Amino acid sequence: MSINFKELANKYGTPYYVYDFDYITNQYNELKTAFKARKSLIAYAVKANSNLSVIKHLANLGAGADCVSIGEVKRALKVGIEPYKIIFSGVGKTDDEIRQALEFGILMINVESAAELDRVEVIAKELGKVARISIRINPNIDPKTHPYISTGLHENKFGVDIDTAKRMYIQCKNSDNLEPTGIHCHIGSQLTQLQPIKESVQIIADLVRNLAAIKIELSFIDIGGGLGIIYDDEKLIDTNEYAQTVLETMFGLDITVVCEPGKFIVGNSGTFITKVLYEKVNGEKRFVIVDGAMNDLIRPSLYNAYHKSEVLNDNKEFSACNLVGPVCESGDFFAKNVQLPKTQHNDLVAIYSAGAYGFSMSSNYNTRGRVAEIAVENGEDRLIRKRETFEDLITLEEEFIK
Amino acid sequence: MSINFKELANKYGTPYYVYDFDYITNQYNELKTAFKARKSLIAYAVKANSNLSVIKHLANLGAGADCVSIGEVKRALKVGIEPYKIIFSGVGKTDDEIRQALEFGILMINVESAAELDRVEVIAKELGKVARISIRINPNIDPKTHPYISTGLHENKFGVDIDTAKRMYIQCKNSDNLEPTGIHCHIGSQLTQLQPIKESVQIIADLVRNLAAIKIELSFIDIGGGLGIIYDDEKLIDTNEYAQTVLETMFGLDITVVCEPGKFIVGNSGTFITKVLYEKVNGEKRFVIVDGAMNDLIRPSLYNAYHKSEVLNDNKEFSACNLVGPVCESGDFFAKNVQLPKTQHNDLVAIYSAGAYGFSMSSNYNTRGRVAEIAVENGEDRLIRKRETFEDLITLEEEFIK
Repeated sequence: MSINFKELANKYGTPYYVYDFDYITNQYNELKTAFKARKSLIAYAVKANSNLSVIKHLANLGAGADCVSIGEVKRALKVGIEPYKIIFSGVGKTDDEIRQALEFGILMINVESAAELDRVEVIAKELGKVARISIRINPNIDPKTHPYISTGLHENKFGVDIDTAKRMYIQCKNSDNLEPTGIHCHIGSQLTQLQPIKESVQIIADLVRNLAAIKIELSFIDIGGGLGIIYDDEKLIDTNEYAQTVLETMFGLDITVVCEPGKFIVGNSGTFITKVLYEKVNGEKRFVIVDGAMNDLIRPSLYNAYHKSEVLNDNKEFSACNLVGPVCESGDFFAKNVQLPKTQHNDLVAIYSAGAYGFSMSSNYNTRGRVAEIAVENGEDRLIRKRETFEDLITLEEEFIK
Repeated sequence: MSINFKELANKYGTPYYVYDFDYITNQYNELKTAFKARKSLIAYAVKANSNLSVIKHLANLGAGADCVSIGEVKRALKVGIEPYKIIFSGVGKTDDEIRQALEFGILMINVESAAELDRVEVIAKELGKVARISIRINPNIDPKTHPYISTGLHENKFGVDIDTAKRMYIQCKNSDNLEPTGIHCHIGSQLTQLQPIKESVQIIADLVRNLAAIKIELSFIDIGGGLGIIYDDEKLIDTNEYAQTVLETMFGLDITVVCEPGKFIVGNSGTFITKVLYEKVNGEKRFVIVDGAMNDLIRPSLYNAYHKSEVLNDNKEFSACNLVGPVCESGDFFAKNVQLPKTQHNDLVAIYSAGAYGFSMSSNYNTRGRVAEIAVENGEDRLIRKRETFEDLITLEEEFIK
């Protein structure tokens, strides 16, 4: 990746997110190729970065979409992803979301509880439709990641245990409005160990075999996502080894493998660029204050996540500091106790690995407009989301002032 | 407060925030009255809840505005707060924000570092203006609250120490473009102890006297905000005792007192109402899944904050559960291990004390539209912000799909 951050800052202002679309292409192709021994669907996890141009880029490559709200389903449809490549996941779906998903005729609904299956059945019946169902299994396996992004333990809210799943598949089989179609598990994010993935996929592959024995034939095995990326010096799972390990568990099964990468596809494609306002020293503490803030990138504050940061100047005088934003909270920081060079007003700071769960979690806290998003592809940059203006922020409340 | 949450749910859908404007009136008046012995300005901290109708309501009562971005300044001006009642605070102000604040002619800029003062001076000179300056003192006092909302320690990024402040006031006095006008301190949020407040105000009042001795006469002493509210069973600071304690420190000074309450004014006025989708049990764990989520109210997830929750049904069968939303993160919860009754599909759940840092921190994560905001005043309800639609979410990126 060679992006001229300064040029983009001059052109679009700061702060901004920039994504390397060629990197996204490579990540997608690497994963798709790794699964070439079998029919596969790479369903991009839209929540990681839901910009329409990002999804469109992946759609052009052949990706499907893993969605967790009807809004995400609509994003996928909007950029031309075919309904038969769209999956709707999530622990809580409203009646209206279920209704719309059935009307759109998406590939399948990933159902996460017995109560949800009942709602889907009621609604499918009302509509005179047959709902294609995948059931998310909670394999009770520790993915060894941050508690907030661990999802595959019984103490988490996600999925159902195997016995419940069996009963739900039988309910599907016996219903005129439900069709057992897939099976799903996803144990967490930022996974860097293969063993927990292998164990969990093994569990669902075994269940597929058990179901086949009672004449419930599934067409899709959805192994989730969660492949880690580089924030610091992580040693990542090798993609080919990952695919091979997963595929081995499916030996003898005639089934399409579905994979739901989000962060893996876009995480390392993105950089958040912000500008130095000034430095200050409080007591012993040096602070570098930039124009970006926690409302733009909340991961450091919310998960205590590490993002590598770099000041784009030539100064060699490094010392420890906190890199912080203008928001009025001590929780508004990008990095604590990092070594950064002395900075000048208007120096740029790059915050790396910000392509996933960056913009998508951003807010208007402190009445800060959300930043611009830029794509770089084949050496060309283009805006893919306009910076929010003050007028954008008040448009839904202005008329009610009295 | 007697608000018919069910009626509002039928009328406006769920989830929604509702604010009791009569409660806001009472809180404002209580504080204003407590300071009646002296000239005072109650500058509402807009970041707590920046809905235009909320600010307008306070403007009508006579409030000023404490703002932390030029966006917040514009909100205050938009609803008719006079510039001479507007303060612009915050550790990081861009050149453009400083320029606009000077052009609007607001009461004063709360400056938080020597480097910032230099920027203000440069810009004021460019514009041929005189910038009225208040300096935020960091008194190095532990407010005994959550680390993320503690702001008055040297390890925090806020304010400057007393010696730095003195030098900055002298710079103001010697400059043609700076006018020393006020002094400020704010040690944190959700304060429930009077002693740290007293100590910090004592420090700045003493500094006002020292400055007067060198012929720097300030007109405003801004004691910050941070008065706690009821989330659980907190014992709050008595407002009259607070005012009296603060005013005692100012004995003999001819100065207007400024106070910046945010949460105190709006926190307990607001309730977040969400609807039960279904219940599930994973292993030993019961989950009540509602249609609201962390993107709507992030305080439980971000600060591990407690909000009292209540299911609005008549069921007496209580048991422990986690109250969670549909967002695909284990961090998406409103309460953990709370006793709630058995629920039915569509039961409403009230999450209290949600008037401050609720909607203002909300996001579109998982492509969830932000919820409706409703005001209730004199028994009448009215919409004060429309629920976001899918079209609202994509409007700034749609044109760039190629």
